[in-house]
Amino acid sequence: MNRHVIVREIDRADQAVIDELGQAGVATVHEAIGRVGYVGPHIRPIQQGTKIGGSAVTVLSHPGDNIMIHAAVEVCRPGDVLVVVNTAPSTHGMFGDLIATSLLARGVRGLVMDAGVRDTMDLRAMGFPVWTQHVSCQGTVKNTPGSVNVPVVLGGITVQPGDVICADDDGVVVVERADAAWALEKTNERLSKEAATRARLHAGELGLDFYGLRDKLVDMGVEYVDRLD
Amino acid sequence: MNRHVIVREIDRADQAVIDELGQAGVATVHEAIGRVGYVGPHIRPIQQGTKIGGSAVTVLSHPGDNIMIHAAVEVCRPGDVLVVVNTAPSTHGMFGDLIATSLLARGVRGLVMDAGVRDTMDLRAMGFPVWTQHVSCQGTVKNTPGSVNVPVVLGGITVQPGDVICADDDGVVVVERADAAWALEKTNERLSKEAATRARLHAGELGLDFYGLRDKLVDMGVEYVDRLD
Amino acid sequence: MNRHVIVREIDRADQAVIDELGQAGVATVHEAIGRVGYVGPHIRPIQQGTKIGGSAVTVLSHPGDNIMIHAAVEVCRPGDVLVVVNTAPSTHGMFGDLIATSLLARGVRGLVMDAGVRDTMDLRAMGFPVWTQHVSCQGTVKNTPGSVNVPVVLGGITVQPGDVICADDDGVVVVERADAAWALEKTNERLSKEAATRARLHAGELGLDFYGLRDKLVDMGVEYVDRLD
Amino acid sequence: MNRHVIVREIDRADQAVIDELGQAGVATVHEAIGRVGYVGPHIRPIQQGTKIGGSAVTVLSHPGDNIMIHAAVEVCRPGDVLVVVNTAPSTHGMFGDLIATSLLARGVRGLVMDAGVRDTMDLRAMGFPVWTQHVSCQGTVKNTPGSVNVPVVLGGITVQPGDVICADDDGVVVVERADAAWALEKTNERLSKEAATRARLHAGELGLDFYGLRDKLVDMGVEYVDRLD
Amino acid sequence: MNRHVIVREIDRADQAVIDELGQAGVATVHEAIGRVGYVGPHIRPIQQGTKIGGSAVTVLSHPGDNIMIHAAVEVCRPGDVLVVVNTAPSTHGMFGDLIATSLLARGVRGLVMDAGVRDTMDLRAMGFPVWTQHVSCQGTVKNTPGSVNVPVVLGGITVQPGDVICADDDGVVVVERADAAWALEKTNERLSKEAATRARLHAGELGLDFYGLRDKLVDMGVEYVDRLD
Amino acid sequence: MNRHVIVREIDRADQAVIDELGQAGVATVHEAIGRVGYVGPHIRPIQQGTKIGGSAVTVLSHPGDNIMIHAAVEVCRPGDVLVVVNTAPSTHGMFGDLIATSLLARGVRGLVMDAGVRDTMDLRAMGFPVWTQHVSCQGTVKNTPGSVNVPVVLGGITVQPGDVICADDDGVVVVERADAAWALEKTNERLSKEAATRARLHAGELGLDFYGLRDKLVDMGVEYVDRLD
Repeated sequence: MNRHVIVREIDRADQAVIDELGQAGVATVHEAIGRVGYVGPHIRPIQQGTKIGGSAVTVLSHPGDNIMIHAAVEVCRPGDVLVVVNTAPSTHGMFGDLIATSLLARGVRGLVMDAGVRDTMDLRAMGFPVWTQHVSCQGTVKNTPGSVNVPVVLGGITVQPGDVICADDDGVVVVERADAAWALEKTNERLSKEAATRARLHAGELGLDFYGLRDKLVDMGVEYVDRLD
Repeated sequence: MNRHVIVREIDRADQAVIDELGQAGVATVHEAIGRVGYVGPHIRPIQQGTKIGGSAVTVLSHPGDNIMIHAAVEVCRPGDVLVVVNTAPSTHGMFGDLIATSLLARGVRGLVMDAGVRDTMDLRAMGFPVWTQHVSCQGTVKNTPGSVNVPVVLGGITVQPGDVICADDDGVVVVERADAAWALEKTNERLSKEAATRARLHAGELGLDFYGLRDKLVDMGVEYVDRLD
Repeated sequence: MNRHVIVREIDRADQAVIDELGQAGVATVHEAIGRVGYVGPHIRPIQQGTKIGGSAVTVLSHPGDNIMIHAAVEVCRPGDVLVVVNTAPSTHGMFGDLIATSLLARGVRGLVMDAGVRDTMDLRAMGFPVWTQHVSCQGTVKNTPGSVNVPVVLGGITVQPGDVICADDDGVVVVERADAAWALEKTNERLSKEAATRARLHAGELGLDFYGLRDKLVDMGVEYVDRLD
Repeated sequence: MNRHVIVREIDRADQAVIDELGQAGVATVHEAIGRVGYVGPHIRPIQQGTKIGGSAVTVLSHPGDNIMIHAAVEVCRPGDVLVVVNTAPSTHGMFGDLIATSLLARGVRGLVMDAGVRDTMDLRAMGFPVWTQHVSCQGTVKNTPGSVNVPVVLGGITVQPGDVICADDDGVVVVERADAAWALEKTNERLSKEAATRARLHAGELGLDFYGLRDKLVDMGVEYVDRLD
Repeated sequence: MNRHVIVREIDRADQAVIDELGQAGVATVHEAIGRVGYVGPHIRPIQQGTKIGGSAVTVLSHPGDNIMIHAAVEVCRPGDVLVVVNTAPSTHGMFGDLIATSLLARGVRGLVMDAGVRDTMDLRAMGFPVWTQHVSCQGTVKNTPGSVNVPVVLGGITVQPGDVICADDDGVVVVERADAAWALEKTNERLSKEAATRARLHAGELGLDFYGLRDKLVDMGVEYVDRLD
Repeated sequence: MNRHVIVREIDRADQAVIDELGQAGVATVHEAIGRVGYVGPHIRPIQQGTKIGGSAVTVLSHPGDNIMIHAAVEVCRPGDVLVVVNTAPSTHGMFGDLIATSLLARGVRGLVMDAGVRDTMDLRAMGFPVWTQHVSCQGTVKNTPGSVNVPVVLGGITVQPGDVICADDDGVVVVERADAAWALEKTNERLSKEAATRARLHAGELGLDFYGLRDKLVDMGVEYVDRLD
């Protein structure tokens, strides 16, 4: 319950599946899997135009303390994404260019943080992508235990170690590890469907028509009028 | 009162006037027309360096439901800006690249949204400009009626269908349709005045002097001291 | 107590020291001087990739009134940074491209604002850097007195006129004037240390090891397990 | 546009109608008139258990300046409610026990404020009810003009002078003056209906049944299951 | 995944255990079980001085839609607490005195709501306790499906149907159903320990001494000085 | 700079002066001393109708860690008020009924907290008044050093150990220790003036008249009109 653990080994989804999910765009993945897994609008990228997919290595920290992030580095593998959650709200800058150097050296693809990060100019220059709630210089200590690779809750979404993290300019979506292949299938279906829809919309057809919404509007009691008087 | 309507025809201001207002910069327009019409700092652009002017097509939606946006597409014309307001606060991603494709195909110039948008990477790539309160993946349904082209209130400002929307990096300003020509005249006066002021300030003259503020400071009891002890 | 003053002369730190501190990066300076001086995550840059250092010229204003900013321009010198604080929370756009023109003409390096700014597109184009809490068009009046070059509190940090302002993408850090040389020494020590650390981390060494955290984790009762059941 | 006026005479609804609307409860009135007029959850009472109805006397103020509230006192009549809106967000304590003494002496029933109030202990002791966004000691000045009895927008709702303000523990609802009698009729219908509904629910009947929602749930694809596995 | 279900039967903890946990105080329970289960400071009571314990019946709703709350009433039993979570942030007043009448008639002990409630004056008068994020009049519709008695995430805590909800003036803590008896045991241990501690502190003994913190302060490098110079 | 100290002895103002200031009402004191010292609207009482005055014993803590509060208890004397500030934003419940028992036993008059408190039902029952930013169950640790009786910044106000804290339902105002007697004199002057003003306002005289605002309104360009057309 109150036990603090560092779990060395976690199961991960197939890397090729993860890579494809990461490039599909988080809004598409979120829709394809039934509108679940979106961690919310408060987790924002510090860069623009970057899409990643990776396996979650989770960290549960005491606010203002980054000792467990250091512990987590060791268990990360190429293709992972570090997901840091705190036991209470915090704006601390828990992560900067030094830990990013370590993670890049190990092939880690990015960071998702529910507190703050710093050295953002360097992080962008290094090409290490970050999604975070805050940017803050405020330094941290290394005094209070936490855990690595335990289930965490990020913005209303449970993240299990090894779940697939997809992140782009729209934010972060979590796909359960066991659902990864299914999610990719659904995502690819949706991408095809969206391409077809886009072509029709581009040609001037209306969503109102091919989604069949005209009758629904009438059923809901919406009236068309030429002018408001 | 509780009636839901889609109004097909609205009056618009002169397009040439709208275009000029859109390029003047929203802070200048806001000042020129007497410091009214600014919708507030919570509506922010998802892109940088884009200025637009257009005629408001308004949508009043139930939170988390985008059926009325689909209904609104049909009544949009080239030069319009879609303005979406919800009946209660919402962060939903009510708008993405598919509807933007439709709107671009119809010559619509942009979107102003009091909830959220998604597919922001695509929207930027397409060149479809958006001003919004949130970025969010959270999907919407198509179940609850609303209205198109009725008056709405956005951030303390009433927007009538056909009002002129000016938007740039500073946010969004609304000019009443009937005031458009007068607003442009005032805006051009202000642009000239600002150019002259800028030249004088650039040359080193002080605002303190040519705004005549030195006497005012004294009248208000402000003292000049050489040093604080 | 309630007296309003404009102080003409302030002491400043050595300009060469200020320049070096400004280029060191605010997170590094904040760490080097003992994790003090950071004004908080609510003051954000409107541009990306700019670092400045300068001497604080402080303004204490009534919300929605910018007369004291005009008064402050006259006492600014090349190398200064204007720091504007209000007597109560405000989102007003108290500053735009006209005053920036004045400040640029006087060699001022940037603005730190606890309310709002406008003309952000122009400010970026002019190369005048700004750190602010809000972007807002809302215009101000020139009716209520305040002070220039008195001590102000910005986000929990006391700023004395002449203190060194360091600002970059991570936000704003304040170094007390008298500590500037010492701060630079500590900052340079830290930069050297960080460079060495970065090289080791880049080579794959773990922070866990060279910070000696393994034993600490054990002392704190953290257990390593191979797998969670 | 930028003209500042104090309007002495406004039309008011019938006082008996206003009184009944005030006692009906704001949630009931809001429902009865078609779910419009609610100013939002950010305007909260400083007392508990008080219901009022009254005619809006509106004030449009510069933030941090209460001169227009003083001007408004003179045009208030017994049965009025003062509604104060600022041209930009503010937390200032613009109102305290002294102005409340004036308003009580004139038969004014309460205050609705989009900034802050102070002397709350005294206001409660005096029995002068207040709905406000903030409680704050921060004092105001008397330097900048505004208007009295012009239309204002409060939390997304347009308030015309003379509109009916209903306020209780749930917040504030605005009924358009011309709709007052109709609104009372609808409210009384709803009160009767609610009483009947309450009796049936109290007796154990389910809303699911008498609102006919069982079929709707099935149509929407909701399944009943005995247990989740 | 996207399936909407209403689960009729759930397992509940022993009622006597639940009752005792409810009266122990949420801060004590939260501490006793290892500082887990607290849903956060944003969920606040609308009344003062009420403590409850009960079994969670969970509702997952579309924002602004209360059809699933109606569906949930039927599966509630005496001793339950309704826990309503939305798929996205919402301030809607989803719950009022009518549904409370139904729930009281069924012996339900209270409501925990992540959106808003209304009729708060009536709810307090009825003695139906509520913990909620917002108070809002804004009415809801009955158009979009959701689920009853599925796992939900409230403020970072996963709530399984049948989990024990403890709520008082400090907020809401969730105890996993299977842990209820153990949690009560730990809680009672803590209550005894707290009583003893309270007696010692009351007698003037210092926490510094009996928690053994003096040495720890020294180890952490804290110095005692008689005066600051 | 980074040194952590516990200062045992501080200077305090005259207790009789402090007591009178505490009973005068914080809005009155704030006005009397020139509108300074108010810590802001985010620090709110957990009780209603309590006024206190006391000498500040200050605590500077790491977020989520209450070891320094324990250290502070020992240096408190009868008539003191504990003022706790964190080095970064925090919602932790750092204080509950146990430490309150200790403080009550030592004659401490109340707590001002920039993070959170818990056991609020007990604190109210004990009659130990608290002003705080949050109510939260979230427990703290005792691992990271801080300081006692050093200057802290609370909501934009510098609090020196020994400064006079005045708190009531309007919030918290800080009076510099050396100014206490002067502040009381000014406060008593204001109380007399307010009493006279209240009598005149109660008798129906207008603030507009005896503050001489009619001419000012005209000077500012405000027009009186009988009706808006």
